[in-house]
Amino acid sequence: MKVWQDGKVELNGMIESYTVGKDRELDHQLLTYDIYGTAAHGAMLREIGILTDDEFLSLKKALNRMLGKVTRGEFGLAPGDEDVHSCIERHLTLELGDVGKKVHTGRSRNDQVIVDIRLYARDRLLELKGELLSLCLEFLEFAEGNRVVPMPGYTHMRRAMPSSVGLWAGSIVESLLDDLIYIDAAYEHNHMNPLGSAAGYGVPLPLDRELTTSLLGFRKTQNNVLYVQNSRGKLELGIIDALKQVMLDLNRFATDVILFSMDEFGFFTVPPELCTGSSIMPQKKNPDVLELMRANYYEILSCSNKVAGIVGSLPSGYNRDVQLTKEPLMVALELTISTVSVCRLVVSGMEVNPGDMESALVPSLFAADGALEQTLLGKPFREAYMEFKDDSRWSRTSEDIFRGKDYPGAPGNPGLEAIGRDINEQRARVCRERERVRDTFDRLMGI
Amino acid sequence: MKVWQDGKVELNGMIESYTVGKDRELDHQLLTYDIYGTAAHGAMLREIGILTDDEFLSLKKALNRMLGKVTRGEFGLAPGDEDVHSCIERHLTLELGDVGKKVHTGRSRNDQVIVDIRLYARDRLLELKGELLSLCLEFLEFAEGNRVVPMPGYTHMRRAMPSSVGLWAGSIVESLLDDLIYIDAAYEHNHMNPLGSAAGYGVPLPLDRELTTSLLGFRKTQNNVLYVQNSRGKLELGIIDALKQVMLDLNRFATDVILFSMDEFGFFTVPPELCTGSSIMPQKKNPDVLELMRANYYEILSCSNKVAGIVGSLPSGYNRDVQLTKEPLMVALELTISTVSVCRLVVSGMEVNPGDMESALVPSLFAADGALEQTLLGKPFREAYMEFKDDSRWSRTSEDIFRGKDYPGAPGNPGLEAIGRDINEQRARVCRERERVRDTFDRLMGI
Amino acid sequence: MKVWQDGKVELNGMIESYTVGKDRELDHQLLTYDIYGTAAHGAMLREIGILTDDEFLSLKKALNRMLGKVTRGEFGLAPGDEDVHSCIERHLTLELGDVGKKVHTGRSRNDQVIVDIRLYARDRLLELKGELLSLCLEFLEFAEGNRVVPMPGYTHMRRAMPSSVGLWAGSIVESLLDDLIYIDAAYEHNHMNPLGSAAGYGVPLPLDRELTTSLLGFRKTQNNVLYVQNSRGKLELGIIDALKQVMLDLNRFATDVILFSMDEFGFFTVPPELCTGSSIMPQKKNPDVLELMRANYYEILSCSNKVAGIVGSLPSGYNRDVQLTKEPLMVALELTISTVSVCRLVVSGMEVNPGDMESALVPSLFAADGALEQTLLGKPFREAYMEFKDDSRWSRTSEDIFRGKDYPGAPGNPGLEAIGRDINEQRARVCRERERVRDTFDRLMGI
Amino acid sequence: MKVWQDGKVELNGMIESYTVGKDRELDHQLLTYDIYGTAAHGAMLREIGILTDDEFLSLKKALNRMLGKVTRGEFGLAPGDEDVHSCIERHLTLELGDVGKKVHTGRSRNDQVIVDIRLYARDRLLELKGELLSLCLEFLEFAEGNRVVPMPGYTHMRRAMPSSVGLWAGSIVESLLDDLIYIDAAYEHNHMNPLGSAAGYGVPLPLDRELTTSLLGFRKTQNNVLYVQNSRGKLELGIIDALKQVMLDLNRFATDVILFSMDEFGFFTVPPELCTGSSIMPQKKNPDVLELMRANYYEILSCSNKVAGIVGSLPSGYNRDVQLTKEPLMVALELTISTVSVCRLVVSGMEVNPGDMESALVPSLFAADGALEQTLLGKPFREAYMEFKDDSRWSRTSEDIFRGKDYPGAPGNPGLEAIGRDINEQRARVCRERERVRDTFDRLMGI
Repeated sequence: MKVWQDGKVELNGMIESYTVGKDRELDHQLLTYDIYGTAAHGAMLREIGILTDDEFLSLKKALNRMLGKVTRGEFGLAPGDEDVHSCIERHLTLELGDVGKKVHTGRSRNDQVIVDIRLYARDRLLELKGELLSLCLEFLEFAEGNRVVPMPGYTHMRRAMPSSVGLWAGSIVESLLDDLIYIDAAYEHNHMNPLGSAAGYGVPLPLDRELTTSLLGFRKTQNNVLYVQNSRGKLELGIIDALKQVMLDLNRFATDVILFSMDEFGFFTVPPELCTGSSIMPQKKNPDVLELMRANYYEILSCSNKVAGIVGSLPSGYNRDVQLTKEPLMVALELTISTVSVCRLVVSGMEVNPGDMESALVPSLFAADGALEQTLLGKPFREAYMEFKDDSRWSRTSEDIFRGKDYPGAPGNPGLEAIGRDINEQRARVCRERERVRDTFDRLMGI
Repeated sequence: MKVWQDGKVELNGMIESYTVGKDRELDHQLLTYDIYGTAAHGAMLREIGILTDDEFLSLKKALNRMLGKVTRGEFGLAPGDEDVHSCIERHLTLELGDVGKKVHTGRSRNDQVIVDIRLYARDRLLELKGELLSLCLEFLEFAEGNRVVPMPGYTHMRRAMPSSVGLWAGSIVESLLDDLIYIDAAYEHNHMNPLGSAAGYGVPLPLDRELTTSLLGFRKTQNNVLYVQNSRGKLELGIIDALKQVMLDLNRFATDVILFSMDEFGFFTVPPELCTGSSIMPQKKNPDVLELMRANYYEILSCSNKVAGIVGSLPSGYNRDVQLTKEPLMVALELTISTVSVCRLVVSGMEVNPGDMESALVPSLFAADGALEQTLLGKPFREAYMEFKDDSRWSRTSEDIFRGKDYPGAPGNPGLEAIGRDINEQRARVCRERERVRDTFDRLMGI
Repeated sequence: MKVWQDGKVELNGMIESYTVGKDRELDHQLLTYDIYGTAAHGAMLREIGILTDDEFLSLKKALNRMLGKVTRGEFGLAPGDEDVHSCIERHLTLELGDVGKKVHTGRSRNDQVIVDIRLYARDRLLELKGELLSLCLEFLEFAEGNRVVPMPGYTHMRRAMPSSVGLWAGSIVESLLDDLIYIDAAYEHNHMNPLGSAAGYGVPLPLDRELTTSLLGFRKTQNNVLYVQNSRGKLELGIIDALKQVMLDLNRFATDVILFSMDEFGFFTVPPELCTGSSIMPQKKNPDVLELMRANYYEILSCSNKVAGIVGSLPSGYNRDVQLTKEPLMVALELTISTVSVCRLVVSGMEVNPGDMESALVPSLFAADGALEQTLLGKPFREAYMEFKDDSRWSRTSEDIFRGKDYPGAPGNPGLEAIGRDINEQRARVCRERERVRDTFDRLMGI
Repeated sequence: MKVWQDGKVELNGMIESYTVGKDRELDHQLLTYDIYGTAAHGAMLREIGILTDDEFLSLKKALNRMLGKVTRGEFGLAPGDEDVHSCIERHLTLELGDVGKKVHTGRSRNDQVIVDIRLYARDRLLELKGELLSLCLEFLEFAEGNRVVPMPGYTHMRRAMPSSVGLWAGSIVESLLDDLIYIDAAYEHNHMNPLGSAAGYGVPLPLDRELTTSLLGFRKTQNNVLYVQNSRGKLELGIIDALKQVMLDLNRFATDVILFSMDEFGFFTVPPELCTGSSIMPQKKNPDVLELMRANYYEILSCSNKVAGIVGSLPSGYNRDVQLTKEPLMVALELTISTVSVCRLVVSGMEVNPGDMESALVPSLFAADGALEQTLLGKPFREAYMEFKDDSRWSRTSEDIFRGKDYPGAPGNPGLEAIGRDINEQRARVCRERERVRDTFDRLMGI
């Protein structure tokens, strides 16, 4: 029976299955966070006198036992549970009687699910940042090991100018590091305590919202209780849009490697243990993993669009539609994290073939350099340019092909040291925040 | 072990899990179709002398046994099976030895998966058409029962002119019937036999493609073997885009009913057994099912966008990216079918409150009619219009409010008879096609 | 002054500019169609006695004069005109006095704009079909001229099996021809007369809707007057989604040609007069036109998404939001037509380099063929497959590389004759329909 | 003639028109920024000895003259100019001869267009922030003026609990203020100097990138020159996704107001001078401006999707596809700014009707409050809840309907003072940054 049912009217079965959707499956990942949220709400109810000290103590013990079971995989939603909140309420009531019912005082499932999702997203975003920075380190190592290796640079997918493997790999690291700007923005937006919103219009009880904010380690209370509900979907959109930036970088990386590891190029080799074969062509070594990294960018795009569509043209206040924003958020976070991890594996195993790159450094690549060097002798660039349209002027300088291109960021000087420092600083920040969050939860559940 | 592995190189575990994705789960729905496809391919191999009569007979028996098991839920993919095709190949080889291996001659998993998806989509589209036409009948009945009930008509979400429940419900039926144009187009596009494509470049064997076309009941052979591969994703897009049309209609229906069943309107009542409650507000009866119907439109949109994104900017020939078009196709088909079914339930239970509509027929709704009636007396419409800006001129005609609005399609004459005939014709067509398909499969598997 | 203003309240300037948007610019393309629609409505008004014969005659003459001016570019919207309908009404009133006002009897701008858009879309879709079939012919000629030229076939962007230029080009033609299924579906949906809907709730006048249907050459009347309004956006979506199919084909063609014309491949050469240069690299010949063809696929996708988003979660009846579906429809139609035309130019100038393809036919491409040929000697394919994992078994058959691949649709037999017949039949159909439409308009405006 | 043409090969006319697209029109807005970029690049070239002091002085004077003309509207792109860069180069060469050509040394149009877009986006984002904060102030004033006005709160579009106008308006302000998190993230990402990238692979000249960074007032140099090119599209996506957040808020505001100003509610009145009429219904006052605000959210979504699609699956290095990201960026920025301005006008004119809200505060709204108040007497909430399913228990407390709901963020205490302080701090920050940018440009162009 649902928490809102009185036994008189039975929800139609087909409707129930349609409305529950994938909630039971998805909510499994929210169990821990619902326990934390309940512990914090309970502590606050004691503070304002709705729970007695004893009631709160027994609640906390029960929640700790539950947490243990969840960790050991011994706890889950039953078919009859409408969602994670009903499931936990049912268990607490079974175990504690009235206290299990009282803990529901002053909150609705609407703000419960929001607090769960925020705590979940906070953890996943921190995990993502950790994985992302590990990937950056992997790329950096790759870049450093191949910094001086010349490589053709392309524009319009046509040979353009000489480049270096260090520049190519460095470009990816810098791009990934900039993604942190967006992830941090979403993290900040997410980092607000929604508790106290109830159904979006508050409750006639003297809730102490600052207390739950502090107990759950949020940076601040989300003030307006209606905005709490209205931010459902909006925040999910903010998070997924940040993930798009990461997946776009990985999409480009995959596109590059698929291209540059074709036999026609041979610049890179994807290791055989990362390749799959064909059921009909014995000779094939296919870069499926890279193709799927490329394709999964569109999965994340579609998560963003789903959320953006669902919340569009909805009036203020909770609408059931937003329930469907939970899945795309979770899918997007999990998929981005796993794609980042898989990418690290690819980078760590990828081989560079300097010989093939070397032989691809044809004279035409040096036409612009030739013309530009004329300008140092005082010739206007446009004139030199016209002269160098004649291919007899093109020639590959056998010596230092990066001569003069050693200013910061240029192919001969990709500036990897500064990147390394940046990565390390960011890693330290992530570590500190992860510790802070862990400590907060330990304190919250400590008896 | 994969069909393409020689035991020397082992695919990395994280990569395997990333590349397999949800295939095992999704492929379960393709088992039956893979059996049909294998039976047809086998029959053709016998015809061209690659299988002997005895080999084919034992193959057919084995496939029939397998089909029985699938039907009884006793057959499924094992964790080691890469996909449905490998699973069936493994079983056949276990049971039949060399024959199980020989049946793979002249086809690749690429054309296997395509034939499976086409047969699957053909069945689902027929099911959808059936459900859709049942929904049309339900709407028609609803429209007929309330044909003469006056209802305010809105533009810009402002009271505009008098309308009727019959007109409103009729508008939905006609819209749904037009969706069949798009579904039929996708059905036609899908209705081509891909077998013989192999990996997109054919095989050096004298395949008889017309034979498998006939055995599987396709309307024609998809000629160009490279186009077979290139149509992966393209066809899925065509199908999902047709489903968008259906879901858009249901989104609008849900939007209307949510609005018109608000207490502020009271035009319709959604029956209590289709409503859910709130965990905090005892008085609530929420139309969750309609909100989710509204939101699921965006799920289908995002399926379309995922496919459109994945196949964009990919070169000719199979690319693994397209594997990810399978899930959105299946999700879109299943979700559209279930939404149509759920909608039927809603329509069948929905109550009309003529009293509330009646009292909403305020004089302002009749301003345009008043002005227009002046034109019958010879006054230019623009002059009458200016006069009727004055609200003292507005008055509700107590008599027939649809007077003069009885030409075909107008509120007083929604033309439901013709719609009924149309629905019945379409239903007969769907029945015939379903029978044809069923007979084809029976004949194919008959011994 | 707007047609609905009484001079008492003035619309705020910033609001006016925000609400008018690009209408004035876009409506220019609807002038002709608004004239046709007005002529048909006028003829109907005469039939039901609202216009006298003389009034109608003078109206028709004025409309013919206006049509002449539009054709000669001497007519356009003035800054004060809210839209095309107001513009024409103003001119007619200026010229004819009361008759110019009376012709507005029984229709609203809502059904005017719908009839305009349908007539516009009908013409553009016919134009597109014509251009598309010309492109098919160009591809066919290209395919025929290179039918026997061998070319490597790729899967996963890795050399896979031998293919032919004829197979490649043929795959594009067949794909384009299948697009006609979707275009025809949209054409059929669009091919309904909306007149008589007024604001979506009819008018109390004895309109003869079948007459305007016949005068404007529509295949039928769109019966339900509310559905007429509700189909705004829905139909635009149907049309644009059909265009997506075309643009997807051209996106793939562009992707292929950009790749295969890289120096690393050299299979095709894009003629210099279709290439652009670089401001800094004198040697560059960039395939900008192909890159933009590739990118414009996403323009069309975004047109579809804009429309799908705008009409989502809107209640029945006209809402101003749908005004914004006009631009994406027009942009999508014009851009698709111009991309098809540009593509034809590219195909007609594209050169094939058989030598480069020849040297790309490396032994690995023949591994599957080698294994398959073993099956003709009775060896189970899976065994032969494992043997041919050994690259010492790979060898290029010097003789006929398409040996055995001459069944319909295979690389050695792309089946171009049947395609040619199909194109010609389709062209004849388009011609007939264009003539029918032209004759209808001539008859309508004839005096 | 194009800067890259040698007069031997002429670009085909249809191709030229297809490739130029809307560049000429769009580039008009970049003129000023291209002048600034050229001035900074010139100053740097003098610093490294490529321009003499005299050459630089004459360049600067010419640029200042040009800037004056642009400001006075006397300067624009000619039909022959390929883009803004070619246009300015042509003028400078005409006026200064060789110096006009020399200033092109060491940069390509690729990094020119990037610097232009960044400076343009920086200005537009600052403008947006200014407008957004003004809108926040307007909303705040509205909220303060109606803080104590009770209003029904809805969930699932059903009457739920008592709310207040202050809470409703406050929820919008807080949401808008959080948008600044995303705008600031995009601003930071955008705030990097790309100059020195050339075509993405540097130039063999000792460019001083830090100097141009400082002259143009960027927060830092974007180090990796390939990443500069690869960030094209990526950055645009980041910006537009931030704008989506703003437009989502305005979409919800519009949805709310359209609903709540229906006659059936009457909570708000949109002033007549912001409404438009109907051509057929004399009585209508339509909220077109709000409908278009609602719809324009989807325009911004589609801008985001267009960019996300275009840059997907493209390899590293400049590809012409990204040229098409310029229009969606500009459209999105301009449209968001104008929508924010229009919204301010609406808020400033909107009237609140306390009477209608008052009479909508029906007893059912108080059911949850009633049940919750029982918990203060010690009753477990779930029991009280079941009792209050009985509508005889519902009653509207005639006294303070917000009794007990005065904790921060609740309907009785929307916390507007803190919001006010936040707005003012943010406004001060924007002012300072705008001044800093203006001063930078003044210093750059000062002689």
